[in-house]
Amino acid sequence: MSDTPLLDPALQAGNRRPLAGYEARHFLWSLNDGVATITLNRPERKNPLTFDSYAELRDLFGQLRHAPDVHVVVLVGAGGNFCSGGDVHEIIGPLVRLKAPELLMFTRMTGDLVKAMRACPQPIVAAVDGVCAGAGAIMAMASDLRVGTARSKTAFLFNRVGLAGCDMGACAILPRIVGQGRASDLLYTGRSMAGEEAERWGFFNRLSTPEALLDDAQALARDLAAGPTFANGLTKTMLHQEWTMGIDQAIEAEAQAQALCMLTQDFNRAYEAFVARQKPVFEGN
Amino acid sequence: MSDTPLLDPALQAGNRRPLAGYEARHFLWSLNDGVATITLNRPERKNPLTFDSYAELRDLFGQLRHAPDVHVVVLVGAGGNFCSGGDVHEIIGPLVRLKAPELLMFTRMTGDLVKAMRACPQPIVAAVDGVCAGAGAIMAMASDLRVGTARSKTAFLFNRVGLAGCDMGACAILPRIVGQGRASDLLYTGRSMAGEEAERWGFFNRLSTPEALLDDAQALARDLAAGPTFANGLTKTMLHQEWTMGIDQAIEAEAQAQALCMLTQDFNRAYEAFVARQKPVFEGN
Amino acid sequence: MSDTPLLDPALQAGNRRPLAGYEARHFLWSLNDGVATITLNRPERKNPLTFDSYAELRDLFGQLRHAPDVHVVVLVGAGGNFCSGGDVHEIIGPLVRLKAPELLMFTRMTGDLVKAMRACPQPIVAAVDGVCAGAGAIMAMASDLRVGTARSKTAFLFNRVGLAGCDMGACAILPRIVGQGRASDLLYTGRSMAGEEAERWGFFNRLSTPEALLDDAQALARDLAAGPTFANGLTKTMLHQEWTMGIDQAIEAEAQAQALCMLTQDFNRAYEAFVARQKPVFEGN
Repeated sequence: MSDTPLLDPALQAGNRRPLAGYEARHFLWSLNDGVATITLNRPERKNPLTFDSYAELRDLFGQLRHAPDVHVVVLVGAGGNFCSGGDVHEIIGPLVRLKAPELLMFTRMTGDLVKAMRACPQPIVAAVDGVCAGAGAIMAMASDLRVGTARSKTAFLFNRVGLAGCDMGACAILPRIVGQGRASDLLYTGRSMAGEEAERWGFFNRLSTPEALLDDAQALARDLAAGPTFANGLTKTMLHQEWTMGIDQAIEAEAQAQALCMLTQDFNRAYEAFVARQKPVFEGN
Repeated sequence: MSDTPLLDPALQAGNRRPLAGYEARHFLWSLNDGVATITLNRPERKNPLTFDSYAELRDLFGQLRHAPDVHVVVLVGAGGNFCSGGDVHEIIGPLVRLKAPELLMFTRMTGDLVKAMRACPQPIVAAVDGVCAGAGAIMAMASDLRVGTARSKTAFLFNRVGLAGCDMGACAILPRIVGQGRASDLLYTGRSMAGEEAERWGFFNRLSTPEALLDDAQALARDLAAGPTFANGLTKTMLHQEWTMGIDQAIEAEAQAQALCMLTQDFNRAYEAFVARQKPVFEGN
Repeated sequence: MSDTPLLDPALQAGNRRPLAGYEARHFLWSLNDGVATITLNRPERKNPLTFDSYAELRDLFGQLRHAPDVHVVVLVGAGGNFCSGGDVHEIIGPLVRLKAPELLMFTRMTGDLVKAMRACPQPIVAAVDGVCAGAGAIMAMASDLRVGTARSKTAFLFNRVGLAGCDMGACAILPRIVGQGRASDLLYTGRSMAGEEAERWGFFNRLSTPEALLDDAQALARDLAAGPTFANGLTKTMLHQEWTMGIDQAIEAEAQAQALCMLTQDFNRAYEAFVARQKPVFEGN
């Protein structure tokens, strides 16, 4: 039995791995004041995904679970488009020649990206302009908040390429965002959802302009990063956990989670600030 | 042990029963190019249901599971109304005199109609004009897509006849389409939902005019029928299966289902067509 | 074995406890023609909750399960505001000094209020004007129907005080009312939802004016109280029960519940009234 304290920095570091020095290979990565920005960056092709970028995104979102220096993630595409989905030549072409075991390896990899996006504690803000199609639409859907533009076109176009709408969790998640009827429309027809329609349906949280989009998304992200980030992480966890809980179960689960938050200094900081008529400064603990 | 191949037509026919020659007794039935149209046809009474038409609809939707020649179903009413629900004289009158076992037989029969509508692989497009009430509103709700008119009136009016809103799955399905608050309003008050309201709430996928309604619904159905129908059937199955799955479970289930679709020729056809800059012609396999 | 009939009034009274004579201590209570009105009444502080009013509300909603003389509940605040949530001085102050067991006792008490609101058979109509914040927003959310005003501001502001959005069931219930994306926005940012926005998102069922709000909510409540109240109670129970049921399970559950309603006299009364071209008079049995 060791008498090393639980919070010994050396031990703690075992499960805390900052991402400040992360060097992305298949997209752009920046980190400022707790706000990470991931920029899909093949603008000449409208930022398609490849096997490599899928895998790196999956791994990076997985690492975010242990990154104490990232509080919010912004996901955006370069050059006026969000993401055109799986590259036709680099992904679709090879897939049509694969057999069942390899295909399942691929669909599980793409699904693991969504699982990692939902499992990391950081809220993810998607900034959606232009083309947002296939796996691109899925990444927007799998984010926590979405800022879009009027000219954006979001298409769950799987049935246009001979596939089912059940891709990376779409049949579970999309109906909870826009309703079962509208999700059915998007998944059965593969049609584009226009920007204003997406706002009206609750897919986009707000509309911006192509020029202001990234700024607006990052401003929203900075607001979230200035909040009680430990508590925000629990909000995300509980939105995930309670997906299939009954109401009474959910209430008990929230009683436990919220009691935990009431033991944080951030809760105390908010109270002290209120009494002193000041704005609280949260520290995420 | 037999050496008969699995796809021997004679064996296959055991579980494949085309509906081309179906002769409906209690409504109209037509089938063109994979699009079946069911027309409730007692226009002088606004197309109410009877014990007989309930049973035939339940059986027909059950048979659709095995019908390779039907790819989409359009459900419509004759004479400017969709369906006025259970006939007061032919259904409500007898019901008030029945005892518990017979009543449960009846409510199970009506529920079985919804189960069959959700279990068949074909997307169902409801074309809703005029009166859409009681079990009529349920049939619209239990469809996959809904085209309506501004003048239509959809009423889950069960509490107006002394009953609860929990009829044929309404307390489970309606909240997922229009939200829990709006569903509560409709079910507690029994009030009519107007056509534009229904579109605004996500109940109707689109609005048409009384004159163009059937054409629009059938055009939408033909579009779906021209798509990858095997994949569309899996979309429907997964929207059903994932109703109460957690997100991670749903993603695994979709990884398997989509891998299966990637083994179809339709997926390959879409890829080949893309490369050849042509429009794919899907065959549902 | 007793030969006392099941409906012996003395025995029946054991589980039927009218609330006609209820004297509220921490809010106002009135009861007219089956419509109870609970008025949060500390208008100078925008009607905050205290430990005492939380506990009394929890107990009162618990008692409503056994109150045969209350058919609908209206929940409103005095003086142009609904409720400002937990009082900063009387609740937040003490909480920051409590330890884990006491904190869990508190969060469970607040959760028990929502459980009791969902478990009583009476539909609850919230009448929301002005400030509706924190636990106030939760009580509005936990009601069955909501009438609001354009000037109202509904804020799930937990993260503004250093806490998580998972409070009293919000991460489970709010997404089902306004959609997962909009709920995420409200819970991560703590921002106010304006009245017209709340109507557009399906949080408010209808908008009224500050002057007409209470009248409109009570008129809606009287309409519900004039309906088949036993059946309405089952509607509420089933909306709760079916929260996490699969579709086929829900349909079977509804078949049983509706068969039970078909054995009530209210069902027969509706039929007889229809045949006689009269308006039915329901009695809740």
